[in-house]
Amino acid sequence: MSGELRAGLAGLGTVGGGVAKILTEHARALSWRAGRNIAVTAVSAKDKAKNRGIDLGGIPFEKDPLALAERSDVDVVVELIGGEEGVARALVEQALRARKHVVTANKALMARHGASLATLAERNGVSLKFEAAICGGIPIVKALREGLIAYEISSVRGILNGTCNFILTEMEATGQPFAEVLTEAQRLGYAEADPTLDIGGGDTAHKLTLLTSLAFGTAPDLDGVSMTGIDKVSPADIAFAGEFGYRLKLLGVARRTANGIEQLVHPAMVPARTPLADVESSFNAVAADAGEAGPFFFQGRGAGRGPTASAVIADLVDVARGAFGPAFGRPASELAPPRREPAEARMSAYYLRFQVLDVPGVMAEISRHLANEMVSIESMIQRGRSPGEPVAIVMITHEAQHVAVVRALKAIAASDKIFETPCMIPMEAA
Amino acid sequence: MSGELRAGLAGLGTVGGGVAKILTEHARALSWRAGRNIAVTAVSAKDKAKNRGIDLGGIPFEKDPLALAERSDVDVVVELIGGEEGVARALVEQALRARKHVVTANKALMARHGASLATLAERNGVSLKFEAAICGGIPIVKALREGLIAYEISSVRGILNGTCNFILTEMEATGQPFAEVLTEAQRLGYAEADPTLDIGGGDTAHKLTLLTSLAFGTAPDLDGVSMTGIDKVSPADIAFAGEFGYRLKLLGVARRTANGIEQLVHPAMVPARTPLADVESSFNAVAADAGEAGPFFFQGRGAGRGPTASAVIADLVDVARGAFGPAFGRPASELAPPRREPAEARMSAYYLRFQVLDVPGVMAEISRHLANEMVSIESMIQRGRSPGEPVAIVMITHEAQHVAVVRALKAIAASDKIFETPCMIPMEAA
Repeated sequence: MSGELRAGLAGLGTVGGGVAKILTEHARALSWRAGRNIAVTAVSAKDKAKNRGIDLGGIPFEKDPLALAERSDVDVVVELIGGEEGVARALVEQALRARKHVVTANKALMARHGASLATLAERNGVSLKFEAAICGGIPIVKALREGLIAYEISSVRGILNGTCNFILTEMEATGQPFAEVLTEAQRLGYAEADPTLDIGGGDTAHKLTLLTSLAFGTAPDLDGVSMTGIDKVSPADIAFAGEFGYRLKLLGVARRTANGIEQLVHPAMVPARTPLADVESSFNAVAADAGEAGPFFFQGRGAGRGPTASAVIADLVDVARGAFGPAFGRPASELAPPRREPAEARMSAYYLRFQVLDVPGVMAEISRHLANEMVSIESMIQRGRSPGEPVAIVMITHEAQHVAVVRALKAIAASDKIFETPCMIPMEAA
Repeated sequence: MSGELRAGLAGLGTVGGGVAKILTEHARALSWRAGRNIAVTAVSAKDKAKNRGIDLGGIPFEKDPLALAERSDVDVVVELIGGEEGVARALVEQALRARKHVVTANKALMARHGASLATLAERNGVSLKFEAAICGGIPIVKALREGLIAYEISSVRGILNGTCNFILTEMEATGQPFAEVLTEAQRLGYAEADPTLDIGGGDTAHKLTLLTSLAFGTAPDLDGVSMTGIDKVSPADIAFAGEFGYRLKLLGVARRTANGIEQLVHPAMVPARTPLADVESSFNAVAADAGEAGPFFFQGRGAGRGPTASAVIADLVDVARGAFGPAFGRPASELAPPRREPAEARMSAYYLRFQVLDVPGVMAEISRHLANEMVSIESMIQRGRSPGEPVAIVMITHEAQHVAVVRALKAIAASDKIFETPCMIPMEAA
């Protein structure tokens, strides 16, 4: 730990450029925290010639990022390439095998291969850190790994994707449909040209997988996430949510139940005027129950240059100070195999919306199918009267089996008095 | 760092008992995080015989806490005695001199003597940790010391005292005056028999002093805090706050300005429907601006057994892992001497309330005195008309010099048309 910590930077995009800039501009303050200097001793990027507004003049450039893992003047590899396989995975594995520490912002890689990479890191006596993989502007990895560790965490819930929260906030404010708001978000730079990973819930699932491991000490289990995106959310459901006293948010939720660990990514109804419901625009937030230490709630910026680079820097300073425990807070060999909550055990209250023909008997038909599946209704709105025309019936159920509600809706949808597929949105705690 | 970490516990009250209990019940999980076992090898408390519901059977008991600092079987002293001088200070100093690490929950001690204790710790090559001194259920010390460190923090604002927030929340909900709500809070156990330190703002000032040091890298400067408690807050002001779209909260605020560091503890108007304004009951919260990493907001439990013991445990695990940098995030020798913002430089918008005689000319008189001091009015409420009777005039000013507003109010109060001392409450950002 004597001498400077020598970092090899793989990826010089927005975040990599930000990291290099901070290390230069705040070198002194960071060396105070780290106990020694942190220097960039090698970099790798696709295009050497590109002007990035930072001076990398004297720093050796590697065309092949894998070469960073082999350089004797690199102590820590910072992986900012991305992707769950390919070069990123090869680089991280090779670096760990070469006994280099690794700092990564790669949520896909960690969600898919976190357990094996943590094992590799421990076997080689080096550190694997990923604060930047989950909500950069919120030090939630550190909080779960080192802060709120005295009691067992029972649940963790988060708004983990700024693009989705921006879109839902805009849909609520303007009443516009999903597709129009998405186009506007793309124009403003809040959504990617290919927004699939964000709006489909995949990005949230990556982050949730890591939060689950940190909170419950289980191996990351990406395939255990049940995932629904926001592309089917309608302005009508957002408006009805408001009438019932809720807001519609895309949540990642992990819960420890009697039967295992439940991991869900879904648009959900959150009670209005609670911290999670009040998260606006592109902000991220994480709420959790830390046993006797109480519930906690953290909000901050999730993505972009500043927040992500800030998280990478925090990890680098930890590595420089020699502060590296196991990646997920317990030795990789002690990570519990994920025991998934069986689909049949899943329980929730639900918001249901039906487009029905306004004729006598339709409500009786809906009620009968719900009752057959033991689904009972807590509250209901039927708006307006248009005899012979389609109207909306909206209700919130008491807690019921997920599979039972699905069966009831299937039976209801078969009726010739029902238009469209019924809409079903779970209710979540604040 | 080989072998177990041996802790000497000074103080076996609510928190000390909680710490001992966690170390026993979660020993295995904590050893995974710490890389070794953490054992209590000696304790000290006032009354050895007292039944604390935990088994301390075989653990050596010291009548004199100072003896813990001298025991060869103690690596870290956990100071849970409290108080800024006396035994607590003597114990911490003696422990550091004897090259024992120190974990403390003592905000008064750290706010008053933090710089000299940090120096003593560094000189002796040991760690001084105080996560439990500020909002136990929120790992804010770690977040500021190790997490959001890449960019400079420009301001930090917090609801740091659960008792005050409980009282203000209740006053708002019930419309009852301060004294009655305080009595009720005492009955419920939310306020101490002697509530001075809470309601006077002293407790908030201790925590703010430490947050200021962590955020700005300055030596703790308790005497630099300008402090106003909540005992003068009236239900009328809370109600008017609501009408203007604000909530009244006791805040600790630290800001870096062109002239120095401003540290304020005061009841302030916070824009409604923002994270800080929405903090209810006895919860604590901290908001800060972390430069390009964005604004962040943390909420959790501040006090009590679980949250405080949880913070002590996190510090002990850090010590066990060998993860100890400087107490305030930079070497004690590099802590900047506090440069206080001069009182004359203080600027803010203000909420003002006057009890006036409802006669012609009174508004002209108030306006004239404000104008004389260059204080301009942004919005105003005058409720009802009772010619010849007292009525309230309430206004919010544009940003103005604090001292100028004070002078204007003094001049206004001298009028025979004004009853009571005018009320003046600063507006704070969300």
